[in-house]
Amino acid sequence: MAAPAAETPAPAAEAPTEDAPAVASYEDFMAGPDAAMFTVNNLWILISAALVFIMHLGFASVESGMCQQKNTVNILFKNLFIVCIGALGYMAWGFNAMYPGDWTISNVFAFGSPLTNTFYDDSAEVVANLTGAYADNGNCYTYWSDFIFQAMFAATAATIVSGAVAERVKLTSFMIYATILVTLLYPITGSWEWGGGWLNQFDGGSEETGQFIDFAGSSLVHAFGGFSALGAVLVLGPRLGKYTKDGTKPILPHNLPLANIGVFMLILGWFGFNGGSVLSADPQGVSRVFVTTGMAAFAGGLGAILISWIVLKKPDLSMALNGTLAGLVGITAGAGAITPWGAVLVGLIAGGIVVVSVLLLDKLKIDDPVGAISVHGTCGIWGTLAVGIFGKEELAGEKISFMAQLIGTLSISAFAFVCSFALFFILKMIMGVRVDAQEEHEGLDVAEHGSPAYNDSQA
Amino acid sequence: MAAPAAETPAPAAEAPTEDAPAVASYEDFMAGPDAAMFTVNNLWILISAALVFIMHLGFASVESGMCQQKNTVNILFKNLFIVCIGALGYMAWGFNAMYPGDWTISNVFAFGSPLTNTFYDDSAEVVANLTGAYADNGNCYTYWSDFIFQAMFAATAATIVSGAVAERVKLTSFMIYATILVTLLYPITGSWEWGGGWLNQFDGGSEETGQFIDFAGSSLVHAFGGFSALGAVLVLGPRLGKYTKDGTKPILPHNLPLANIGVFMLILGWFGFNGGSVLSADPQGVSRVFVTTGMAAFAGGLGAILISWIVLKKPDLSMALNGTLAGLVGITAGAGAITPWGAVLVGLIAGGIVVVSVLLLDKLKIDDPVGAISVHGTCGIWGTLAVGIFGKEELAGEKISFMAQLIGTLSISAFAFVCSFALFFILKMIMGVRVDAQEEHEGLDVAEHGSPAYNDSQA
Amino acid sequence: MAAPAAETPAPAAEAPTEDAPAVASYEDFMAGPDAAMFTVNNLWILISAALVFIMHLGFASVESGMCQQKNTVNILFKNLFIVCIGALGYMAWGFNAMYPGDWTISNVFAFGSPLTNTFYDDSAEVVANLTGAYADNGNCYTYWSDFIFQAMFAATAATIVSGAVAERVKLTSFMIYATILVTLLYPITGSWEWGGGWLNQFDGGSEETGQFIDFAGSSLVHAFGGFSALGAVLVLGPRLGKYTKDGTKPILPHNLPLANIGVFMLILGWFGFNGGSVLSADPQGVSRVFVTTGMAAFAGGLGAILISWIVLKKPDLSMALNGTLAGLVGITAGAGAITPWGAVLVGLIAGGIVVVSVLLLDKLKIDDPVGAISVHGTCGIWGTLAVGIFGKEELAGEKISFMAQLIGTLSISAFAFVCSFALFFILKMIMGVRVDAQEEHEGLDVAEHGSPAYNDSQA
Repeated sequence: MAAPAAETPAPAAEAPTEDAPAVASYEDFMAGPDAAMFTVNNLWILISAALVFIMHLGFASVESGMCQQKNTVNILFKNLFIVCIGALGYMAWGFNAMYPGDWTISNVFAFGSPLTNTFYDDSAEVVANLTGAYADNGNCYTYWSDFIFQAMFAATAATIVSGAVAERVKLTSFMIYATILVTLLYPITGSWEWGGGWLNQFDGGSEETGQFIDFAGSSLVHAFGGFSALGAVLVLGPRLGKYTKDGTKPILPHNLPLANIGVFMLILGWFGFNGGSVLSADPQGVSRVFVTTGMAAFAGGLGAILISWIVLKKPDLSMALNGTLAGLVGITAGAGAITPWGAVLVGLIAGGIVVVSVLLLDKLKIDDPVGAISVHGTCGIWGTLAVGIFGKEELAGEKISFMAQLIGTLSISAFAFVCSFALFFILKMIMGVRVDAQEEHEGLDVAEHGSPAYNDSQA
Repeated sequence: MAAPAAETPAPAAEAPTEDAPAVASYEDFMAGPDAAMFTVNNLWILISAALVFIMHLGFASVESGMCQQKNTVNILFKNLFIVCIGALGYMAWGFNAMYPGDWTISNVFAFGSPLTNTFYDDSAEVVANLTGAYADNGNCYTYWSDFIFQAMFAATAATIVSGAVAERVKLTSFMIYATILVTLLYPITGSWEWGGGWLNQFDGGSEETGQFIDFAGSSLVHAFGGFSALGAVLVLGPRLGKYTKDGTKPILPHNLPLANIGVFMLILGWFGFNGGSVLSADPQGVSRVFVTTGMAAFAGGLGAILISWIVLKKPDLSMALNGTLAGLVGITAGAGAITPWGAVLVGLIAGGIVVVSVLLLDKLKIDDPVGAISVHGTCGIWGTLAVGIFGKEELAGEKISFMAQLIGTLSISAFAFVCSFALFFILKMIMGVRVDAQEEHEGLDVAEHGSPAYNDSQA
Repeated sequence: MAAPAAETPAPAAEAPTEDAPAVASYEDFMAGPDAAMFTVNNLWILISAALVFIMHLGFASVESGMCQQKNTVNILFKNLFIVCIGALGYMAWGFNAMYPGDWTISNVFAFGSPLTNTFYDDSAEVVANLTGAYADNGNCYTYWSDFIFQAMFAATAATIVSGAVAERVKLTSFMIYATILVTLLYPITGSWEWGGGWLNQFDGGSEETGQFIDFAGSSLVHAFGGFSALGAVLVLGPRLGKYTKDGTKPILPHNLPLANIGVFMLILGWFGFNGGSVLSADPQGVSRVFVTTGMAAFAGGLGAILISWIVLKKPDLSMALNGTLAGLVGITAGAGAITPWGAVLVGLIAGGIVVVSVLLLDKLKIDDPVGAISVHGTCGIWGTLAVGIFGKEELAGEKISFMAQLIGTLSISAFAFVCSFALFFILKMIMGVRVDAQEEHEGLDVAEHGSPAYNDSQA
């Protein structure tokens, strides 16, 4: 994830190589002068992994809270499944495809392989590679920390789609889709930048173009998820009765306190999502990222409150909640490259953009029950471009440019959209992707799971 | 926040000064022997900031869970707004008013100014001041960590008021009130103690009086919030139908599992609120604070269970929940100065006090839907005084006295009460502070926001 | 808790001894070369304590969400009471019984005593014992950190029982039962292994038998809780109307989003439960534990989804949720001794086992509303045995064997079952353990607490 701020290929994920520095053993390293620093850096990556994990509760709660009561169990089931299969698929394949030792198609596609299992091989070479060398190289965390942090990231892409297709998608089809998305497709675009692929190498390519900056994934995670969602929704179509001759029918969220819990969990987790992407506990780096991340979220909330109040003539809680998320997605690309007041601006604008985007998609009859396409897709692009606008001119000796940002975010978004559309279309042909009208009307909870989310009865 | 335990002016918040130690650059500092310690200390302040942030979910969930269903969206909206505007207002003004470089009225009032934006000025002087110097001075965190931690604190004061005025306050009036409270008023009393003002200097003033101790803000945050709430509620009046000729009508909480989530989030966050106020990760300091904080919370729960069972003749969940919060507020002033068993006593008593206070306010027809005045106001005073009773006799070479605690907590509480009353009264004159009877009856969710919190219908 | 991985008696919990190393003072130690490492290790134990604390919100939310609406307040009250009394009882007695200085009955039973209160005794001897010596000995945390981490663990045992007896247990009887369980019984079996008792000494006893490994308590916490629950449930009997002539009546969970929040909180907290049991922030140790813990949880979810889909013919959310918990319980004994792919297998199997166990208990008319016996009891045994199957052959120079695992887990489970059964039986004789049929029908919330959990009415 997220090469530091400077865009060198994230070396942390490289498989153990033979030219590792000569560290006699883990014990020797831990008796040396760098042990404490290694320990605190590694601990922060692990705590960040736990924080990113809790974002999955955030997604599950926001999505179910924003949808109708009758589809709650289905949404929770999907989200739980995604984090399970996402982590496992990433372990079985994705991790080593995203940080490839060997490219299959040069700098564009790599074959993955299962996570190494040499847990207790205490030979000096392995130990040096898996632990000591990481610290020595300035990649201050272990191979295992790297994996678990990245695995928590990977599952988020499919979770974003989950919200957009909610309330009418066929469960089994979505399960297949999500598995392929996380295991195969997400690592491809991920490898382009964080795995050292073409987009990463494109960075310093030309004096005029500058490098591509996507600190923690405005494009690589969020726009990827948002445009995958758009592709899926176009194949799937809107919920029945949403767009009628008489106009668009509002479908109200069924549980706003639940959605509120979800959003706060997402903000909390984002401190790990962005903060952990510093890839160390470096005080200056992580402190800055906490400030930019937090302030963009809060400004995003204010921006959405303001714009939605003007447009909708009332203080809208759903929009305010989505505004904070929009601010977070917006700052994710530039959390390490934008000043605190710049972050406020990026967030404020993101909060406004998300309101407009939500209303616009409704005009276009693209039905996204939770606003996932707007929050992650639209604001993912905005956040990536914002680095070219608000970022400082140079980072780690390389130029930042609007053009590089534009090329990068469009490449990733287009790839996600096309692949997701194609995959969903194929699934539609083979097995269908939508429940029948009767089931949709009845609600997926009883129709697919045989259990409503809430019960108040019993002897 | 919270000068360590000893009450020297929190130097962490001082603006960069010219007599900074000669640190060549951030990189040089980080290559030196203090780097690992600086890193872990700074990390703990950041993690604490994240923990204090999640207290806002706690407040939102407790307040909405304890109130009626028809006002849920309104409460969630207010709480989200407060954390957004609170952090932004503190960034724009409050931070530099609370930790003043220059006093406007000597040691009592300071003009604030926007947070510095010199994020990437890598000159040795700036770097030394913003980072290295902090560590060198024993203020082991960066300027940015200091800000984000304090900003999370600042918003809590207004959130406390939010609960007390719930279910009948006019949204726009409250938004203006909260903005002024966080940005202007909270930094004033904060500066008195943590900014090195008169109350802080009063500390060692006289051999007999002793110093004023308020570790993490029993008075500076909680009594401030609680007595601000009292002032606002007196202007606002009780909910319609609460106090009738036939006696007090109980208005039941609408969602106790939600309130329960809120309380657990508050306890969790308090480990950062108090633990981070050590201002470093010093093992002895933070460990002690975790023990006193946790045990006071648990004893507070038991105290409230016991007293409410005796008084109300039943095991009352709401009282038990408020009891844990009372214990936490109670130990906040003395978390670093009271022994583990002393903390148990402080918490037990706080748990009893909160039950009595809640019942007493109801007798006085002061309507506080969530018990915020009792939890934060009454127990905030109790906690501050408890340091003079249970604290060790001396801390960091200065005497602890009941009299100093009394003077300190009354000054802060009185200031908060008077200012809040006046501000709310002015707002009442200008624009009104209360929704009309029809809206109050209907519920603020539909009346002000056009959206109920829960829906179970749809095609 | 949880001797590192190697099973030497957890020395961290030893009371201060007289042969402490010669550390002049805490300040001296903190000026030395080990200070930063001590600080980060101690911080991780404290953060882990906070994470284990939040598991109590997890238990409260899972249990109340899985039960009927009319018993929600009762469940939340019980769970809040347990964490309060559990921590206080452990402070007053259990901690010093579990980590005994002196055994009363050799290596089997020890008298406890209150936690030391010498908080501010700054004599070199005390300081050396309570802080510096800990770091020096490789027990890199303070006496206070040790206590608060262990105290959070202790309360979980009684919480497990709480779920199994829900919806019909008499509140006061359960409060007495839970107090005795946490304060007296849990420390006994705990001392057998983590306190250096017979099971711990049995470890290296014979070349063939090998040592007993229970990293973070598959047996010592979870099987203990699960078999205590079984004992209590057998005395208590099933809920009225659950098992009738016409077969078993399903009683539906009342709030699945609440249960979902609970499970995610438990997974999050488990990163501290297992991760903190490394007893330091050692990068290799904690990283491995995060990977095994996380992957076992996710595999457990998948295993339960798969098996329950086959058996029940539908994708069952409750089973999927319990599957993740089963995976966590399963990996708890071997988190430090099993490879990543081994952890996946352990979790997958645990997920299958929990489904079968839940269905089997229902066949046997043993009524466990939340599946606690299956999750913690059955999978606690499975997890302990799995170390003998999937663990590497040797750990820290001592052999791992299936037989040692079997003897250990059966001893602990049998002790818990017998004591819990006897205690509940005695309480039944003296004061009854069950509410009357009228109260059970009406629901405990109104009958015992005079307050429903949800309200939607009011003027």
